[in-house]
Amino acid sequence: MSDDDVAAKLRLVLRPDQVLTDPAERDAYAHDDAEWAEFHRPVAVVLAETTDDVTVVVRTAADAGLSVVARGAGTGLSGGANALAESIVVSLERMTRVHEVNVSERYVVAEAGLINDDLRRAVAAHGLWYPPDPASYRISTIGGNAATNAGGICCVKYGVTRDYVLGMTVVLADGEIVHLGRRTAKGATGYDLTALMVGSEGTLGIITEVTLSLLPLGGREERAVVGSFASLEDAGVAVAAISAAGIIPSALELIDAMCLNAVDEWQGLGLPRGAAALLLSTVDDPGATGAEAAASVARHMTDAGALAVDQAVDPAEIDRLFLARRLAYPALERLGPVLTEDICVPRAAVPEMLGRIRDTAAAHDVVIATIAHAGDGNLHPLIIAPEGDAAAKARAKLAFDRIVEDCRELGGTVTGEHGVGLLKLPGARAELGERVLAMHRDIKAALDPRGTLNPGKAF
Amino acid sequence: MSDDDVAAKLRLVLRPDQVLTDPAERDAYAHDDAEWAEFHRPVAVVLAETTDDVTVVVRTAADAGLSVVARGAGTGLSGGANALAESIVVSLERMTRVHEVNVSERYVVAEAGLINDDLRRAVAAHGLWYPPDPASYRISTIGGNAATNAGGICCVKYGVTRDYVLGMTVVLADGEIVHLGRRTAKGATGYDLTALMVGSEGTLGIITEVTLSLLPLGGREERAVVGSFASLEDAGVAVAAISAAGIIPSALELIDAMCLNAVDEWQGLGLPRGAAALLLSTVDDPGATGAEAAASVARHMTDAGALAVDQAVDPAEIDRLFLARRLAYPALERLGPVLTEDICVPRAAVPEMLGRIRDTAAAHDVVIATIAHAGDGNLHPLIIAPEGDAAAKARAKLAFDRIVEDCRELGGTVTGEHGVGLLKLPGARAELGERVLAMHRDIKAALDPRGTLNPGKAF
Repeated sequence: MSDDDVAAKLRLVLRPDQVLTDPAERDAYAHDDAEWAEFHRPVAVVLAETTDDVTVVVRTAADAGLSVVARGAGTGLSGGANALAESIVVSLERMTRVHEVNVSERYVVAEAGLINDDLRRAVAAHGLWYPPDPASYRISTIGGNAATNAGGICCVKYGVTRDYVLGMTVVLADGEIVHLGRRTAKGATGYDLTALMVGSEGTLGIITEVTLSLLPLGGREERAVVGSFASLEDAGVAVAAISAAGIIPSALELIDAMCLNAVDEWQGLGLPRGAAALLLSTVDDPGATGAEAAASVARHMTDAGALAVDQAVDPAEIDRLFLARRLAYPALERLGPVLTEDICVPRAAVPEMLGRIRDTAAAHDVVIATIAHAGDGNLHPLIIAPEGDAAAKARAKLAFDRIVEDCRELGGTVTGEHGVGLLKLPGARAELGERVLAMHRDIKAALDPRGTLNPGKAF
Repeated sequence: MSDDDVAAKLRLVLRPDQVLTDPAERDAYAHDDAEWAEFHRPVAVVLAETTDDVTVVVRTAADAGLSVVARGAGTGLSGGANALAESIVVSLERMTRVHEVNVSERYVVAEAGLINDDLRRAVAAHGLWYPPDPASYRISTIGGNAATNAGGICCVKYGVTRDYVLGMTVVLADGEIVHLGRRTAKGATGYDLTALMVGSEGTLGIITEVTLSLLPLGGREERAVVGSFASLEDAGVAVAAISAAGIIPSALELIDAMCLNAVDEWQGLGLPRGAAALLLSTVDDPGATGAEAAASVARHMTDAGALAVDQAVDPAEIDRLFLARRLAYPALERLGPVLTEDICVPRAAVPEMLGRIRDTAAAHDVVIATIAHAGDGNLHPLIIAPEGDAAAKARAKLAFDRIVEDCRELGGTVTGEHGVGLLKLPGARAELGERVLAMHRDIKAALDPRGTLNPGKAF
């Protein structure tokens, strides 16, 4: 079937404005935020508005021997939504309805294309809270969050997307629609196919709706503790000490000097300068418990040799500090293409890993800025190569591989929260090993025997 | 291969005392605590001491065309560990080692046969806490807890077994050993095969070791609030109101009069008598927050028409009250064979469901006692038939089916925490539907093509 025939077939069922075939439009959907990974111009792009629309795409693609790449907002950092050769991209960005907010059961049912922050607002109106907060929460979709098992800042205390997905509507490789999971607080009926789908990056099914468990909105009191350090390792020692002391902060983020300077030069936020690293921490226990926890965090920072430690309880001040963390990635992207790591090491190994990253930058003559969900041991060394400098790009890739190897040596995992996509495939394969990879292939073949759904991604 | 040949082959590799062939010994391992479900005398019972021993069993069984039923302590209530015709039972009860307790990363690595309470004690010695607390926690194994995704009393706040399993060692259907999951706080590498194994009841692999995430032991202050009610429905109204108010108790249990009386007559604990139902609640937030939450729980009980509401902060008194809850099941078993329900309905539907259970008892002329993790909507109506009364047993089965239907009508699931095993198969199949069942069959065939591992269970 020619590309024109495919588009014509899609337009038999879908409205013309839902089927994009213009080359420029198709290129706009050719990759997510992982341009370093391979991508192709898709045969067509479909803007699905219902689960049935997704079924139409899957069936049409299967008939035409094409693959289907599902996509939310395209904010992924591993290439999971990068278009494949001979693929149709189905975007769920128009599927933004909130079907139900249930207060007594504390769940929300929403379509996959809903922006995380819009979902957050919708449930807040009912006194409920959806914790997972990837840095992209203002622009990424809840379905993309589920497909990649997105993390975020508050995960150190509240867990990742996986921990909140109770159920979902999924379009399978044969185009059939199934409802997985439950809406009750507990459930043990059959295999946990919901958990299998979370993080499977659209390779086993396309998530079109999610049911998410929620927490009460109130009852938390935020206190921020910010420490600046003369070295990344000192900051790492503070992180390990806070964790070993049994304190569970609601955020424990690290920003290095390069990130801080890049944000400040871009946005002029008046951030602390002159330190090698900043640790941004919050605790949210109410009352005396929270005050004690904040004091304890501050003490551990001081003991680790902090240059200065400040506490803040003013929400505007806390927001300003965390805005720096959230803007770090786009600020660095202004300096050149960014190759993003997402390693997760044991908390106690954070100082050692930070040292090795610094050594790798020196050894490979590349610029590496580091932001981190330090409290989880989840580090994002960001390798920056000047635009158009092929040699720098090659060195960046070597540094990338070196960091992955170091992470595995320290007992870590190659992706903490971004998913494998394409960028992390070699590291993931080494980490999983041949027999576990075979389990992945067997499950993929069982649920998608023709390899229609995002083949070659995730494992 | 004859049964004797199978045993001889096992004894070539294993010590003689690990291979039980005496009929009485085999009968002792023929079923878990679900005698109402079908069971058979196994060909042999193997007491595995290492993961390699389990491999020996799986390979020997596969060669001989037998199936393998894995078993922890045999405390399951759905028949998941009931022996099949032509099966070898492999018990992991001797695999009780704690390999590692990691304080800074907050995890424990332990063998599957370790008793939940022994694991709890082992990690408490390091200032850590493993929350999931099935009523059987003093006698059930952590591997069985993982294989069935066991729940418990504190799950209303702290989640179920699934929420704590980071990784595991598993023997696959071909006898190969794999390590799934991770030890880091976060991880998104590949499919979540760990979650797929949790609750799969030994049908996809045999869990021989688990890595469990832990919480700090300290920082909680228990306050109990106990309300007695003139009717089950009144108690249900209190549960729904507490939930709708956004209070998250650390326990919210219901015991009906029949359970209370059975426990008190057995153990003489001096429990409150004369009410139709007791709600046992704890909150564990420290300080003023906890005091306010306890007061709020008490107020909702009063508003729902409680006959009396008492608060307790004395740990011994709290333990005494919850001991009644934990002893309810064995106390009722003394009255006759118990057919155990494990339905989970939306919290708001708890009063309606309790009313329907009472109606079902009347309509089918059966005795039904109810205990419940009421705060999760997870109800255990226990249907009791006098020993040897075939007509009563038949009526009990009809009542069982009626309760399952009612639960599904109210948006519930047929098993909240016991698993499907054999007893819940019809209800589970109706709940999952044909297409999702086909996904289960496809995954089972992909990972266990010869059907060696506990075939016919779980879905």
